[in-house]
Amino acid sequence: MDRNLFEAAAKVRGHAHAPYSRFPVGAALRTKAGAVHAGCNVENAAYPEGWCAETSAIAHMVAAAEAGPGRQIEAVAVVAEMIEGRLTAPCGGCRQRLAEFGAADTLVEATDPSGKTSRTWRLSELLPAAFDLGER
Amino acid sequence: MDRNLFEAAAKVRGHAHAPYSRFPVGAALRTKAGAVHAGCNVENAAYPEGWCAETSAIAHMVAAAEAGPGRQIEAVAVVAEMIEGRLTAPCGGCRQRLAEFGAADTLVEATDPSGKTSRTWRLSELLPAAFDLGER
Amino acid sequence: MDRNLFEAAAKVRGHAHAPYSRFPVGAALRTKAGAVHAGCNVENAAYPEGWCAETSAIAHMVAAAEAGPGRQIEAVAVVAEMIEGRLTAPCGGCRQRLAEFGAADTLVEATDPSGKTSRTWRLSELLPAAFDLGER
Amino acid sequence: MDRNLFEAAAKVRGHAHAPYSRFPVGAALRTKAGAVHAGCNVENAAYPEGWCAETSAIAHMVAAAEAGPGRQIEAVAVVAEMIEGRLTAPCGGCRQRLAEFGAADTLVEATDPSGKTSRTWRLSELLPAAFDLGER
Repeated sequence: MDRNLFEAAAKVRGHAHAPYSRFPVGAALRTKAGAVHAGCNVENAAYPEGWCAETSAIAHMVAAAEAGPGRQIEAVAVVAEMIEGRLTAPCGGCRQRLAEFGAADTLVEATDPSGKTSRTWRLSELLPAAFDLGER
Repeated sequence: MDRNLFEAAAKVRGHAHAPYSRFPVGAALRTKAGAVHAGCNVENAAYPEGWCAETSAIAHMVAAAEAGPGRQIEAVAVVAEMIEGRLTAPCGGCRQRLAEFGAADTLVEATDPSGKTSRTWRLSELLPAAFDLGER
Repeated sequence: MDRNLFEAAAKVRGHAHAPYSRFPVGAALRTKAGAVHAGCNVENAAYPEGWCAETSAIAHMVAAAEAGPGRQIEAVAVVAEMIEGRLTAPCGGCRQRLAEFGAADTLVEATDPSGKTSRTWRLSELLPAAFDLGER
Repeated sequence: MDRNLFEAAAKVRGHAHAPYSRFPVGAALRTKAGAVHAGCNVENAAYPEGWCAETSAIAHMVAAAEAGPGRQIEAVAVVAEMIEGRLTAPCGGCRQRLAEFGAADTLVEATDPSGKTSRTWRLSELLPAAFDLGER
């Protein structure tokens, strides 16, 4: 487990706006330039208009950096309660959003709030055959 | 390739509302009850407010059927132009939406508009370690 | 109140997939060509990946019709429980989605499930100064 | 025009990730506690999975503050090119997202990148009859 990313994600999770799901999530990513950006989920009364913790972390990254290593994701940690005894990886939508700024070997780590249980994937494992318009 | 699903997806693709991406997509799914539901992408001037072809097909399915086999997805076909010589699977968001009504062995098939090139995955291959609140 | 649209929206509301909010919504629209299309909300375990009833109804419309009057919305009815004694209009996202296929004088009607309380707006009242890329 | 908010929004707009629409947008908000948070739009190859500048700015605000005045929006400035000679207000989805943390008198200001043309609304003018689950 990446201790620094875990701690950043666990801390921002305390600020999640999750009054509808009561399922707060924190995320923290490290760019290839070495910067760490964190964010939490922000729900909305109209559920589809809310967004996930990973989205918030990416929003910080893009606002902070020029195109280049500063907006390439090297690793991301997500902290949330386990559901029925299982750690879960980012939702499909977040895998897509991570892919916009990640690479096949971007590390994706899910950890429970206590930090005791953790699992790591490569992004290519979580989003094989990724959709990409190829226009960038 | 599932010929019936391909043809349904290819036909509805002609109705896609894709003036922004100019990338029309059609999707057709078959439920475990045997019904076929099709839909196309519907884009919006505010890009995040549009939606994908798979979303439209699922919307038809849910509107048409009671809970049960009529809203369990057995297979889904997606038709779109190849990008840089590659067929692409549904985006991460659509994998998440399919998972709400699919199972590990739900078949997901991508085909080019001519029907010549096609590839099939199981949903569990496209969305491993799926996020699921487990509340249903 | 438009009785036909109300009844179509109230009926499809019974099929809503709303296990997370427990707030089922039905919507039915009439095009300028006279066709009626209905749909319900379809939620997702990852809340931002679900969609609203109006989205589903528009998905049906686009799949069914060529560009032209068949995909221009004349009126839409939305049926949902009142919240704290108030009928509520479509969420901001749905106003944006309706605007893609509507006009300033498109009628938007909210009605409670019993059909006793109803209110109608013009779309231009609900989404003044609408965002539109002007590219269509 | 609120000069500080305009400048923050105009600056972050330079970081927008908008390779698909080529329509960069910057947003900056001031909370009732006096803090300023800015963000830009972050598009995705799968269009519905991207998000708007206002979303990014709100993400910053929520990550930074406890519930209370620090996450109540007093005013928000949005900077984007004019379309066909018109300034446009936030899209419907963003009005909904602003409403989650705003009030009837929250100021919403649209300005062109040069800062010469500007228009201000109250949020209640942009999202009348707002949808709100009333659960907070």
